[in-house]
Amino acid sequence: MIKQLVQQMTLEEKASLCSGSDFWHTQPIERLNIPAVMVSDGPHGLRKQDDKADHLAVNESIKAVCFPAGCATAASFDRQLLMTMGEAIGESCQAEKLSVVLGPAVNIKRSPLCGRNFEYFSEDPYLTSEMATSFIHGVQSKNVGTSLKHYAANNQEHRRMSSSSEVDERTMREIYLAAFEKPVMDAKPWTVMCSYNKINGTYASESRKYLTEILRDEWGFDGYVVSDWGATADRVQGIIAGMDLEMPSSAGINDRRIVEAVKNGELDEDLLDQTVERILTINYRYLENAKPDTKWDKEAQHALSAHLAAECMVLLKNEDHVLPLSKTDDIAFIGEFAQKPRFQGGGSSHINCFKITSALEAVKDMAQVTYAKGYDLLTDTTNDTLIKEAVAAAKQAKVAVVFAGLPDIYESEGYDRTHMGLPDCQNEVIRRVAEANPNTVVVLHNGSPVEMPWVDDVKGILEAYLGGQAVGLATTRILFGEANPCGKLPETFPKKLEDNPSYIFYGGEKNIAEYREGVFVGYRYYDKKNMDVCFPFGFGLSYTTFAYSHLVVDKETIKDTETVTVSVDVTNTGHVAGKEVVQLYIADHESTVIRPIKELKEFEKVALMPGETKTVTFFLDKRAFAYWNTHIHDWHVETGTFDILIGQSSQDIHCRQTIDVQSTVKLPVDYDMNSILLDLLSDPDAKAIIEPLMLDMMKKLMAQDEDADKAGNEAITLEMSKAMMQYMPLRAIVSFGNGQVSPEQLAMLLKKINNPEE
Amino acid sequence: MIKQLVQQMTLEEKASLCSGSDFWHTQPIERLNIPAVMVSDGPHGLRKQDDKADHLAVNESIKAVCFPAGCATAASFDRQLLMTMGEAIGESCQAEKLSVVLGPAVNIKRSPLCGRNFEYFSEDPYLTSEMATSFIHGVQSKNVGTSLKHYAANNQEHRRMSSSSEVDERTMREIYLAAFEKPVMDAKPWTVMCSYNKINGTYASESRKYLTEILRDEWGFDGYVVSDWGATADRVQGIIAGMDLEMPSSAGINDRRIVEAVKNGELDEDLLDQTVERILTINYRYLENAKPDTKWDKEAQHALSAHLAAECMVLLKNEDHVLPLSKTDDIAFIGEFAQKPRFQGGGSSHINCFKITSALEAVKDMAQVTYAKGYDLLTDTTNDTLIKEAVAAAKQAKVAVVFAGLPDIYESEGYDRTHMGLPDCQNEVIRRVAEANPNTVVVLHNGSPVEMPWVDDVKGILEAYLGGQAVGLATTRILFGEANPCGKLPETFPKKLEDNPSYIFYGGEKNIAEYREGVFVGYRYYDKKNMDVCFPFGFGLSYTTFAYSHLVVDKETIKDTETVTVSVDVTNTGHVAGKEVVQLYIADHESTVIRPIKELKEFEKVALMPGETKTVTFFLDKRAFAYWNTHIHDWHVETGTFDILIGQSSQDIHCRQTIDVQSTVKLPVDYDMNSILLDLLSDPDAKAIIEPLMLDMMKKLMAQDEDADKAGNEAITLEMSKAMMQYMPLRAIVSFGNGQVSPEQLAMLLKKINNPEE
Repeated sequence: MIKQLVQQMTLEEKASLCSGSDFWHTQPIERLNIPAVMVSDGPHGLRKQDDKADHLAVNESIKAVCFPAGCATAASFDRQLLMTMGEAIGESCQAEKLSVVLGPAVNIKRSPLCGRNFEYFSEDPYLTSEMATSFIHGVQSKNVGTSLKHYAANNQEHRRMSSSSEVDERTMREIYLAAFEKPVMDAKPWTVMCSYNKINGTYASESRKYLTEILRDEWGFDGYVVSDWGATADRVQGIIAGMDLEMPSSAGINDRRIVEAVKNGELDEDLLDQTVERILTINYRYLENAKPDTKWDKEAQHALSAHLAAECMVLLKNEDHVLPLSKTDDIAFIGEFAQKPRFQGGGSSHINCFKITSALEAVKDMAQVTYAKGYDLLTDTTNDTLIKEAVAAAKQAKVAVVFAGLPDIYESEGYDRTHMGLPDCQNEVIRRVAEANPNTVVVLHNGSPVEMPWVDDVKGILEAYLGGQAVGLATTRILFGEANPCGKLPETFPKKLEDNPSYIFYGGEKNIAEYREGVFVGYRYYDKKNMDVCFPFGFGLSYTTFAYSHLVVDKETIKDTETVTVSVDVTNTGHVAGKEVVQLYIADHESTVIRPIKELKEFEKVALMPGETKTVTFFLDKRAFAYWNTHIHDWHVETGTFDILIGQSSQDIHCRQTIDVQSTVKLPVDYDMNSILLDLLSDPDAKAIIEPLMLDMMKKLMAQDEDADKAGNEAITLEMSKAMMQYMPLRAIVSFGNGQVSPEQLAMLLKKINNPEE
Repeated sequence: MIKQLVQQMTLEEKASLCSGSDFWHTQPIERLNIPAVMVSDGPHGLRKQDDKADHLAVNESIKAVCFPAGCATAASFDRQLLMTMGEAIGESCQAEKLSVVLGPAVNIKRSPLCGRNFEYFSEDPYLTSEMATSFIHGVQSKNVGTSLKHYAANNQEHRRMSSSSEVDERTMREIYLAAFEKPVMDAKPWTVMCSYNKINGTYASESRKYLTEILRDEWGFDGYVVSDWGATADRVQGIIAGMDLEMPSSAGINDRRIVEAVKNGELDEDLLDQTVERILTINYRYLENAKPDTKWDKEAQHALSAHLAAECMVLLKNEDHVLPLSKTDDIAFIGEFAQKPRFQGGGSSHINCFKITSALEAVKDMAQVTYAKGYDLLTDTTNDTLIKEAVAAAKQAKVAVVFAGLPDIYESEGYDRTHMGLPDCQNEVIRRVAEANPNTVVVLHNGSPVEMPWVDDVKGILEAYLGGQAVGLATTRILFGEANPCGKLPETFPKKLEDNPSYIFYGGEKNIAEYREGVFVGYRYYDKKNMDVCFPFGFGLSYTTFAYSHLVVDKETIKDTETVTVSVDVTNTGHVAGKEVVQLYIADHESTVIRPIKELKEFEKVALMPGETKTVTFFLDKRAFAYWNTHIHDWHVETGTFDILIGQSSQDIHCRQTIDVQSTVKLPVDYDMNSILLDLLSDPDAKAIIEPLMLDMMKKLMAQDEDADKAGNEAITLEMSKAMMQYMPLRAIVSFGNGQVSPEQLAMLLKKINNPEE
């Protein structure tokens, strides 16, 4: 049907569909009764531009509900939570007649500095992809599309429209693409948004490799690709690559380019037809299922937002059980964020909230608190009067709670942070309040890690991330124990910015940003470097405690084509109900590629009443043990032993069991004269052929070594000679053989080694 | 003359000269009265094989003198010392009829694990190149050749004959090639030895880029290139690349290959002629200046070796002035190394010493000491009996001196270390002795950094490195204050192996070794990462103290074509004579490339009597401020401010002064539609053309932002918009301009920007 429709179109009409009619609408074709549809920014709520939407889209959007941002929801480690939030947003879209909401955003948090980190989920691709998959399922269950973004390797705002992310193949697959792979394959987003940046020299919007070969041919994506707003450079190359919808409008310029390109043979019209078909397929998928009479209950969503936010918060420190607070104690709330919470970031995801609940407002229904502003959000400079008030309030209170975090200007789409610190004035307030009151708690509002020079001086730290418009409600519920914190850090908090793996090369030189840390992003790096961190990946406290027992792995050995079942018992050993995130990591004992110490491969969030035990079961297949092999360009498991680790965080492993995994894939070999003995002798096929020949030479060498030993030449021992010999190339047979083996004979031998079957 | 000689040769004769006649001799041609000449391993003494030299060269070499190894001599920071040692070795060569001694070895100490580190000088290319230059001058002043090795990027023994060092252009130039560049250009070594490894995929022995374009065309090298022993893979490709002498003999196989290649046109005979000419030129340079009656006074060289070793030792810790020891106190020497010092490493540099002086022997002339073996060098396992003896000896003594270090098997050519630790049994002895006696001093014998888990438990640490056969004499002189320590660390001692910049990727995957840390080798990394280290680069204590004053920089501003003179006064503020190493570092304030915090650019060792002051003067030219620019493929200085730092170590800077350097080089520009405003507006030429056009658009954008502000859209402020706008590409003029600027007009504009002169 869509195909027939496209056949009826003129070349000009087809070209016109390849870009928007304005900032937010696709192009209609009245002659064929093809309507325009609208898309809207997300991902944690709707930023639908009002009808008066202007060219630059800086005027107000409609009043909507701001849910917790990606940084927060990832901390839930809760697939169902993302699903629920997606459903709510999907319903809002239906109510607002939006075909697609522009999210989720799954770029990896490579550096704390990325201005847009708050929209992203994690430093870990597995957690990211699980969160995104659930969110997409949620939204799309309401027959509204999502736009998985920003594809790909878009991990900095600095020079975002010109920088080339230089990433090696394995890193791209294991870290940056892995965040997109499962969402595409499993949740089938209606659209994917290509990013502004270049990938290894080619604009994402012009890369046939990424937009067609990987996304469609490998992963089976069947929706349309939309450009990030303004990401289109060469429009014709974009269509060839598989970039379907240019946004926003190109004011007709690229329509003409496309028509011209088809006419002069530069662009195959079939490719244009495919592009148009893909756009229309999605548009009609929405149109044919539109439910414009869907009710949007904003008050209910506000309540939902509060509920979700509480499930995302991470309790980082709770010395002497300073939390939860007692409603009858004297409590001081200090810091302007208590009154004006920061709960979302700046840029395209910014929601015009219909309602905002601050902690100061929310607490009125729970307890009496005194309030002191402490600092001014519009400046970094310490205000002595405000400090004095804050100290006075802290002194009178049983517990002082300082609301701190990053001001809007610090963290936004469009540019990166320049350091990892809070504003000086906030650090100073915390320091002074902690001096004045030993029971000081800090609540943090930020989209990415901050340095905590006062970490040892305060008793409690609650990471609220950017928790959406009802964050104040969620915060007070956690603080006063009406909710039990159950979030875990989706990223490492390093002690200082310089500790971050990307620190030296982050941002790049001019338009080249090299990802030199490779796969060693986040905890993969801190683990490997055996480095102290402020708080590790996966860490988060609860008001109760949990115990782990009975790790059962159902097989000792598997082939890489088989699945292994892992189960473990978790018990709530405390006195209140709580939720625990059971984390499963895999550690490869030995590998020919340089691998992380361990990698997250599964997790499950379980709710437990005091004393209750539940069994959590995981199923692991090849992928859990695999790395991306750049010779066969595929996931590969090396035969060997692996540890299955169950932990409460990446650094708090409670049980482990070893498993043998056998590869069923024989990697292709291509030995030559320069192949070394170590490699030849470790390949059973090659060893069988080569060893007899080597033996003579080795015996001779070793005999000489023994003579050398006897001669007292203490520097050359048998052990040392063996160590050296393994690195010798095959060609040495010719030189060491004194003419016994000719180059021609060696060539014959090589042929045999390379084709052991023949 | 050489040319005429070559013209008389048959093709076969020429081919025969391209490899050795055996392990150590070049090929003679009797018909033309061309004699064979001999070369010999070095670099810190002669490993001349006895006449009975067999095919594998593992039998004994002649008795010779072992001077301190490269690791130690670099710690002298003393150009004259290297010159003196070179002269001594040159004389030995003359006496032994050797045309070339195979050294110095200038590979950068990239990781503490490299098995051959002990032969290398430093983690810093400037220090390395200065040491090598002086050594070459010293040897060659005796009309004997050197072989600067191993060229290039040969920084691991692991898979050394097959691994490809993957190094980016700037890193190669600033770090790895810089170690070779000055020695080649300034000291003109007679030969250069190419390394076993590949460089970015091509064997060093087959790289025309490295052996001809850089070495000869750029740096003016006019000697012959010799292969590391066995480094020849494709001999014909080697001749094309400029690899002249294959060592050892190829048993005639490659002679035939060469002849065949010339006959079938694969190899230009002119290239073969050049190769032969280069080999003969050097051989005759030796032959015509040979002084076979030179006297080799081994006893005098032994004394010299002791003197040099004392100048190299680095006093790392001296709490409570535990050193120097008093000759009248009860002293315990503990550890087998006191009796059997380790003073050289295993492999091709291993000298058959005519005499070895241990500390235990040397001390007999100075003081009474008790001795306990402490540990057994042949095992890592702690021996309780030996420990007990050691503790008993320590308890009775005023000061306990533990002689520790790496056993031969730990550190050798041919394979890498697997960790950075001392043997467990040695760490245990040190721990137990330090428990037994608060005045414990450790003397270390090692070629590369070791972990020191006991660093806080002992009062003194003396790094003796591998100090040559008279090391015991030097050690005791330092210990008892007959010599004042004046060495400085030529490398950082990190706290643990994982801290090393190359740690994660060192050794590589199969045959690919990626140098991902780039130029951030050694202190360049620790500085940048703001990381605590055990002992920093350039650090070393003395029995006296020094003060710095009167830093004078003769100009405030220079062009990059000018030279600046820097002088500083150094005063011996203590009570004994001593030597200080004045270190000059340059710090670039701002750069478009990612640069180290500071880099060593000059140093000078000065001897000062108590109370004496000397003025040290340095001259800095363009190179001191430059980085390698990969666009113009040349050294380049960006206009800007730099700090000139004078320090006692890389972390102990005493004076600094700022200087402005103006570039006289205009870098070529090539803007396109995707060039961003930030770059266009920061280029004065482009700015003049583009700004008027941008202004309208910017005004419009900002006006809207202000409206947005007024509208209360707090997330989009003027500041934030400005930050975002700078990253916009030029093509946005077309889209934002609403058709006011056409693509064609923009193309015209670009042409104008790219050619501002026209």
